[in-house]
Amino acid sequence: MPELRKDPVIGRWVIISTEREKRPTDFPARTDRVDSRTCPFCPGNESSTPPEILALREDGTKPDTPGWRVRAISNKFPALKIEGDLRREGVGIFDKMNGIGAHEVIIEMPNHDQELEELPVSQFAEVIWVYRERVLDLQKDSRFRYILLFKNKGVAAGASLSHSHSQLIATPVVPKRVIEELDGAQRYYEYKERCIFCDIIRQELDDGTRVVTENDSFVALEPFAPRFPFETWILPKNHESRFPRITDDDINPFAAIMKDSLQRIEGVLGNPPYNFMVHTAPHANHHELAYHWHVEIIPKLTRVAGFEWGTGFYINPTPPEYAAQYLREVKVDQPAAEPAPQPHH
Amino acid sequence: MPELRKDPVIGRWVIISTEREKRPTDFPARTDRVDSRTCPFCPGNESSTPPEILALREDGTKPDTPGWRVRAISNKFPALKIEGDLRREGVGIFDKMNGIGAHEVIIEMPNHDQELEELPVSQFAEVIWVYRERVLDLQKDSRFRYILLFKNKGVAAGASLSHSHSQLIATPVVPKRVIEELDGAQRYYEYKERCIFCDIIRQELDDGTRVVTENDSFVALEPFAPRFPFETWILPKNHESRFPRITDDDINPFAAIMKDSLQRIEGVLGNPPYNFMVHTAPHANHHELAYHWHVEIIPKLTRVAGFEWGTGFYINPTPPEYAAQYLREVKVDQPAAEPAPQPHH
Repeated sequence: MPELRKDPVIGRWVIISTEREKRPTDFPARTDRVDSRTCPFCPGNESSTPPEILALREDGTKPDTPGWRVRAISNKFPALKIEGDLRREGVGIFDKMNGIGAHEVIIEMPNHDQELEELPVSQFAEVIWVYRERVLDLQKDSRFRYILLFKNKGVAAGASLSHSHSQLIATPVVPKRVIEELDGAQRYYEYKERCIFCDIIRQELDDGTRVVTENDSFVALEPFAPRFPFETWILPKNHESRFPRITDDDINPFAAIMKDSLQRIEGVLGNPPYNFMVHTAPHANHHELAYHWHVEIIPKLTRVAGFEWGTGFYINPTPPEYAAQYLREVKVDQPAAEPAPQPHH
Repeated sequence: MPELRKDPVIGRWVIISTEREKRPTDFPARTDRVDSRTCPFCPGNESSTPPEILALREDGTKPDTPGWRVRAISNKFPALKIEGDLRREGVGIFDKMNGIGAHEVIIEMPNHDQELEELPVSQFAEVIWVYRERVLDLQKDSRFRYILLFKNKGVAAGASLSHSHSQLIATPVVPKRVIEELDGAQRYYEYKERCIFCDIIRQELDDGTRVVTENDSFVALEPFAPRFPFETWILPKNHESRFPRITDDDINPFAAIMKDSLQRIEGVLGNPPYNFMVHTAPHANHHELAYHWHVEIIPKLTRVAGFEWGTGFYINPTPPEYAAQYLREVKVDQPAAEPAPQPHH
């Protein structure tokens, strides 16, 4: 059983995945080699993954057989396990919990050689729809306090399989990083009685130098203080603290701006590894007015080193105003500002 | 001039190094190639670095010529610049400062092919002595609030030159990561009236399963909730909040346990890239009783990915008890418990 352990000084939780204990010889040389064996995410190999939890499929096809367009499964090697009750325990001055949670994989498309940003907006919208459905389902489980949706693309960004996929992890505590954001937003709200993200959006749209692209419902921008070169945030223009409340009408424009932004990053930087994370308030939260959900995309171009680990500062060699200019000028198939109207679910 | 910019939501500062603006094409393919050109850190090439600030040298040799054993210089490409007064400024709802600070390099030895952990304890102690002197000198500058000593070894850990060296960065604000540690320690102190690190040391020495090695003055251990496999902390056994107050008598045992720990990591993992950071209270601090300086060593074996970025959680596949066992059992030249008595400064 994995274990959650808390650093007693700064309160950071770590997951010790005791079931797959790594011996020193298990850390492979870090190459950019991708999997060459049979891909468990390809159609026809459905039996080599855990059974599907949700799939969008052609009429008449059966679960765990080909015919799906998007497929959500449990992670075969989960960081946290779904079975059991949460037990909190002290070990002298230390605190731990058993590793209860959920860890799912969302296979974004059947085609092994396609990338998320290459999907037509209508198909990208189906991936977003599955994101929302899985979060709505998991937040019914009272053991879970937070659900993070994220994607790792490329070996350098932590992906272990090359077939395009996203992940979701439900945790039994609200993570420290999330609490920091909620607290920061709450302090601003108490002082100004306005959402800080709404204020950021207003100022950035007015200023324009860090805006990458926008449509009626969303804006993509380089944040004022980005940790990484070409770090890009996507925010809904209307105030809303939680991602899973995204309306059917907003799924298409969200998919359009995600595709557009990822394509611009791809166009400027040439297939970089990247991570993106959906930042949302927890489902049980008192930050409705103060917090504002958004996506943060971080291309993996620089290395985190001693200074960053020791201070929490980041050194970024690319001013966001420059990054925004490059991203604005690069050509994309279908800019978010003019998404082709596409039917979705 | 570099700029310090603050994330308005969570209060994280980033350094935008505007003088070496990186264009998209400037991010090289990430290989493990090391420098093959003339090494600026080798004896004879002193003129290719900024002038030395401090060096331990053979009698009769001149500054910026060969004959040095340890040499401290300004970083030729500093993240922060030493000249000027600090100016804080608002940009609408955002905050920034000009990038005032110090960024120095400590070249640990003349030999290009030797590693820090291969130095005899007496020479390692000279490196520590230079660390202390540079911090004591820089903390006289009232513009600086924090001074971080750190080392990046290997390209994957962020080193850009292979000749063994450490670095030091002085910042005009106390970094977020440091404040979090100070606050955590302070809360514990207010509750218990004891230093949390002193309590950790007592419990770990009593328990033993996570202890790696120790001598009269220091202990090396795997922390209860390590972010990374084989993450190793070195703590002074006697309470002291600030590293630069290390006594002459303690420099040798500190060098001995640093060498021992790095050699064990090397012995178990085989020349891994790593970072280490000296965690210390700031020089102007009110945490004398609550905080306890220490070193954190993190071998670079796993990748930080979307889940870590989104939550601040870490997934660690190696329980610290296992790591400690491997590190205890590996053979080293000269265990810290029995350092050869060596003269030092």
